[in-house]
Amino acid sequence: MSTEVKSDLYKDAGVDIDLAQNLLKRVKEKISDTRRPEMLAPIGGFGGMFRIDLKKYKNPVLVSSIDGVGTKLMVAMMMEKYDTIGYDIVNHCINDIAVQGAEPVFFMDYIGIGKLRSPLYEQVLEGIADACKTANCAVLGGETAEMPGMYGNDFDLVGVISGLVEEDRLITGEKIKAGYAAIGLASNGLHTNGYSLARKVLFKQCGYTVHSTPEELRGESIGEALLKPHTCYWPAISRALASEKLDLDGMAHITGGGLYDNVPRVLPEDVDVVFDKNALPVPPIFKLIVAKGGIGPVEAYRVFNMGIGMVWFVPAEQAKTALKICSEAGFKAAVCGKVVSGKRQVTVL
Amino acid sequence: MSTEVKSDLYKDAGVDIDLAQNLLKRVKEKISDTRRPEMLAPIGGFGGMFRIDLKKYKNPVLVSSIDGVGTKLMVAMMMEKYDTIGYDIVNHCINDIAVQGAEPVFFMDYIGIGKLRSPLYEQVLEGIADACKTANCAVLGGETAEMPGMYGNDFDLVGVISGLVEEDRLITGEKIKAGYAAIGLASNGLHTNGYSLARKVLFKQCGYTVHSTPEELRGESIGEALLKPHTCYWPAISRALASEKLDLDGMAHITGGGLYDNVPRVLPEDVDVVFDKNALPVPPIFKLIVAKGGIGPVEAYRVFNMGIGMVWFVPAEQAKTALKICSEAGFKAAVCGKVVSGKRQVTVL
Repeated sequence: MSTEVKSDLYKDAGVDIDLAQNLLKRVKEKISDTRRPEMLAPIGGFGGMFRIDLKKYKNPVLVSSIDGVGTKLMVAMMMEKYDTIGYDIVNHCINDIAVQGAEPVFFMDYIGIGKLRSPLYEQVLEGIADACKTANCAVLGGETAEMPGMYGNDFDLVGVISGLVEEDRLITGEKIKAGYAAIGLASNGLHTNGYSLARKVLFKQCGYTVHSTPEELRGESIGEALLKPHTCYWPAISRALASEKLDLDGMAHITGGGLYDNVPRVLPEDVDVVFDKNALPVPPIFKLIVAKGGIGPVEAYRVFNMGIGMVWFVPAEQAKTALKICSEAGFKAAVCGKVVSGKRQVTVL
Repeated sequence: MSTEVKSDLYKDAGVDIDLAQNLLKRVKEKISDTRRPEMLAPIGGFGGMFRIDLKKYKNPVLVSSIDGVGTKLMVAMMMEKYDTIGYDIVNHCINDIAVQGAEPVFFMDYIGIGKLRSPLYEQVLEGIADACKTANCAVLGGETAEMPGMYGNDFDLVGVISGLVEEDRLITGEKIKAGYAAIGLASNGLHTNGYSLARKVLFKQCGYTVHSTPEELRGESIGEALLKPHTCYWPAISRALASEKLDLDGMAHITGGGLYDNVPRVLPEDVDVVFDKNALPVPPIFKLIVAKGGIGPVEAYRVFNMGIGMVWFVPAEQAKTALKICSEAGFKAAVCGKVVSGKRQVTVL
């Protein structure tokens, strides 16, 4: 386990630089618990090592992605609640490579922070470890950099995921044809996108705090609704990939840019997708932001996922199979659109 | 090329969010130029794809590391000079995995920034692309997150490197024995460590600015000396790995913690290393900081590399071969220590 902490503070600045190591000790066990058999024993902690399993992959392709959590971190800071942010970064990263058919195998984190503190640090790392463990993804390494002059009281969280896929099982979207069904998998909220607009509308325009409980949220507070962790779709995707009854020919992770920008990324040039916005329920937090902010439907579906966190493309006759797999994996899903002839455009009706 | 820019700004905040894409366009060519044949054509930009070359690697092990540049960024900001920071992050990362015998194959970057601006952004990315190109390492992806509420005028830069090595060619240090020679490869300055202490001594205690040219630096300014980019030792390491005349049995990248903390990471339990601090010249910037700060030798060699950026361990009779390889690759090097019986400790005499 090669997670490292570096501090640019010195003892004569009145700071206990052993704090980092002590905090790390508490979470090392959880991190170690994410180990996979392909991991080699650490050597000196310079780089994490992961053996490619050639029994499992004959022509392995590595798929990697790097991402941050964005300003959802500011909501976590307002709530002083840091136990879900780790899930956000891990799950966001996993979805980003799982849509290409890759099995997530290892994750690494970077935390840049002004002042290392408890319980923030352990909560973030525990969330990362738990989210990785759930997806059978190893935490291969990490880096924490304490830089008071740069971050002040803030921090940033970056994640990198690596996954493996057999080359001829890469999912590219190129087989998607007119007539295919678009299956929407439900999101539980904003995931990790649209927080600047959400914060502007809710905090600045409406004057809510994270503790406000507007009627529209049915008992939930603004902070609770905004902090819901990014859904990890890997349990559904892995079942779908293993099924011989389903041709899962394209997947799009609905992040910043919404359906409008993310879906075309996997479409062939000659098709469009028409979505039905009533196919899946829109979580109350979106309705609240849209109503209070006077946000039009096109902007809403471009900034937010509006309740659809992932889209699968399957032959229409396999839609039921896809829905069954989602349901068995514990995901709410619905046919929420259809592929038609066109030119790589998305319509939301 | 899946480098992406996300902005949490919106147009009604008076900011042109197309700036990011326009700036990125200018450097896309340089980034594309780092492509390696193992890279697959991007699919929708979700995750970068890299095929494992099984003709080259029979039992491939992936070695990965994540790191930041730390507060060297603050010196870059004081200088308003951003064309070397990309080299710093790439070269630091490459060294961290090359010491395990891994060939760097792909790199990804994350830039968190308050306000995206030119020429900072292009200069950072161009440095990354150029440094990667020099080491034949592909830029597989990247993420830029613009978050004015979090970073203000600052930014952070994170890099992730992945490399490959044949499992039985991993360099672990376990073969190092008493009698081995320690070869020091010269550094050109602080590389990416010790900047908080350096800034404290030079700027706070001495009142220098980045433009000061104290006599000790022989015509160089403080800023120039501090911003010298991290040396990439891969050209020497790759030659050494390819040589049949050299048993390169251990390598340590001398980063934060200096010789004292980094060398033991690769030593077997039963040996010590005794270094001769006069074997390689100490660059003037270190002498200046140490003298002005009244820093003792133990602290100096624990915070700074003091002129030795990397240490190789080879059988004593192969020391000449090692030095010849370094010299042919353009690196200044010297036998700077010897391995003796002991208990994994480092002495600097």
